[in-house]
Amino acid sequence: MTNTDVLWREIVDQPDVLRRLLTSGGDIVDAAYTLKQRGCEHVRFVAHGSSDNAATYGVYVLALLAGLSASRDSLSLPVYYHTPLRLDGTAVIAISRSGQTPDVVDYTRAARAAGATTLALTSHPDAPLAEAAELVLDLHAGAEHAPTATKTYTASLAALALLAAAFAEQLTPVASAIERVAASMPAAIAAHQRAAPDIAALLTEHERLFVTGRGLHYATARQIALNLTETAHVLAYPLSTTDLLHGPIAALQRPFPVWAIGGQDSTDTTVQDTLRRAGRAGAPTILTAPVAPCLTADHHLATPPAPTPLLAPLLAVLSGQVLAHAISHLRGPARVHRGAPGAGSTVPK
Amino acid sequence: MTNTDVLWREIVDQPDVLRRLLTSGGDIVDAAYTLKQRGCEHVRFVAHGSSDNAATYGVYVLALLAGLSASRDSLSLPVYYHTPLRLDGTAVIAISRSGQTPDVVDYTRAARAAGATTLALTSHPDAPLAEAAELVLDLHAGAEHAPTATKTYTASLAALALLAAAFAEQLTPVASAIERVAASMPAAIAAHQRAAPDIAALLTEHERLFVTGRGLHYATARQIALNLTETAHVLAYPLSTTDLLHGPIAALQRPFPVWAIGGQDSTDTTVQDTLRRAGRAGAPTILTAPVAPCLTADHHLATPPAPTPLLAPLLAVLSGQVLAHAISHLRGPARVHRGAPGAGSTVPK
Repeated sequence: MTNTDVLWREIVDQPDVLRRLLTSGGDIVDAAYTLKQRGCEHVRFVAHGSSDNAATYGVYVLALLAGLSASRDSLSLPVYYHTPLRLDGTAVIAISRSGQTPDVVDYTRAARAAGATTLALTSHPDAPLAEAAELVLDLHAGAEHAPTATKTYTASLAALALLAAAFAEQLTPVASAIERVAASMPAAIAAHQRAAPDIAALLTEHERLFVTGRGLHYATARQIALNLTETAHVLAYPLSTTDLLHGPIAALQRPFPVWAIGGQDSTDTTVQDTLRRAGRAGAPTILTAPVAPCLTADHHLATPPAPTPLLAPLLAVLSGQVLAHAISHLRGPARVHRGAPGAGSTVPK
Repeated sequence: MTNTDVLWREIVDQPDVLRRLLTSGGDIVDAAYTLKQRGCEHVRFVAHGSSDNAATYGVYVLALLAGLSASRDSLSLPVYYHTPLRLDGTAVIAISRSGQTPDVVDYTRAARAAGATTLALTSHPDAPLAEAAELVLDLHAGAEHAPTATKTYTASLAALALLAAAFAEQLTPVASAIERVAASMPAAIAAHQRAAPDIAALLTEHERLFVTGRGLHYATARQIALNLTETAHVLAYPLSTTDLLHGPIAALQRPFPVWAIGGQDSTDTTVQDTLRRAGRAGAPTILTAPVAPCLTADHHLATPPAPTPLLAPLLAVLSGQVLAHAISHLRGPARVHRGAPGAGSTVPK
């Protein structure tokens, strides 16, 4: 089985992963109860790569659903510069698909020793991270073997939405909405698959692109950029719409594609503005969003509307996964250099 | 005068900008005193683009020099989703060279109304941001006209270092170290200028690269990537060394350049590891760092050692500025499309 086949198998496995995660509601309720009982008002996320993109979503969903203030913390300060951790009233959520990322494990151990409530999200509940943290949520995504993360990413998003919902005592409606998201995934994947060859050809011709979104959709822009870059055939640079408009849009004086994520969101005006300006600069535009009159682009990867805008990122990211697969399929496996590292999930410091 | 000439004038103006900033020590001492007197323990930065890169540095220098906990806040949550700002014991530092970025102004106004101590860093102390904030520090960088930010970036870094130093009651040694940084800038710029043509040819041939660093050097990686991308001739994607090693390094199966920033820092081991892995994958490597036996690359842009590692980012970023200029000079002005926006400093929402 090639890497491309493995990637496809992991993409289509996502509805089942979400359903398995929903059966573990008890653990999530317990974790939310512990955070609440201890008066945690602030959450710090620590993670790398796709898990850090999931944390980007976590900052939004914890604020919007649970009223919690959250931020992605600097791992380097305690790990490399040995600054003291001051974590009164703070919970630390560490996300790692392998459960082995060394600096995330080190930070979590130090945070727990400093008195923080620590929670690990991982697909490997027997890994070092799960030992380091006080509380563990199994993502139920199993091992992931493709060169880019898919099912652990959507499982992390769903786990964070469920945690926020349990904290807000709204678990039932959010769990039911995630069931509907899972049910709509296969048709969405099939639709993207039909649209993918043309867009894959466009992206590999240009070899580079901007991926952009804002608010809840910024995490999706980051994750789609990572999925595409990890195919090894294009370099995809994620920026918030405002950061893109703030200066780098000038790079489109030599036009290359701009892929925007939007829909069902109060940030749609800024997405619309970005697409309009990119189009005027002569850049080919790609849009991931439900069908909506205000958002148009040269290529539209239409997503099913989410039962709530808070869960739209679980559906929007599928378009990037399918395109990463289509690009890998189109170009064949990248040339592998002797000694070149694979996309290993454990990272030495 | 062409854009390329304007960029050069702003690059070589930096020592004088820093000296002007040092004369405004009184304002900085007053601001630090106010933060201290009000018991501010946490700082939230709000900014976009190069100012957000300066905030990335600010998180480190406030922690390492002043023991303050700081983070870059989500502007979208209050601005687009209207979440309440909870800012007890918090100072907000808003950075904007124009002082006009609408969502930064909106956030600052709301934060001030919510009772936070608000401080604006801007080169335009008569702009809306300065009215919105309670305290204002003039960056003394004057107007900036080139398509990418140089002197406002280094002035922001110096202002943040001075603020942290004043908070820690160490203003004199840090101010004197910044004077020495300013004095060593002209020779550094001249040395980079001699090395630039070969590297500019390499980067424009590949059209894309990763820029990487960690800890104090991560802000520099982000800013160099922005300077290069805004030349409109290359797409430069910034990642921390660990995030690069965590997956995107696989993209080097089709080798393109990796530019690493390091030196005088406890993160040097991870920079060394990244350069070694990139080299093994066949990628051309570029290094910005003082001469040090442990760090080697195909192309070395040697920086003068900084008087303290905390100020190394003020010197390291010069190499990216000089390369942005060399690329613009080599390729000539990018083709401008009718209606394509320039790198305007005001960004509509």
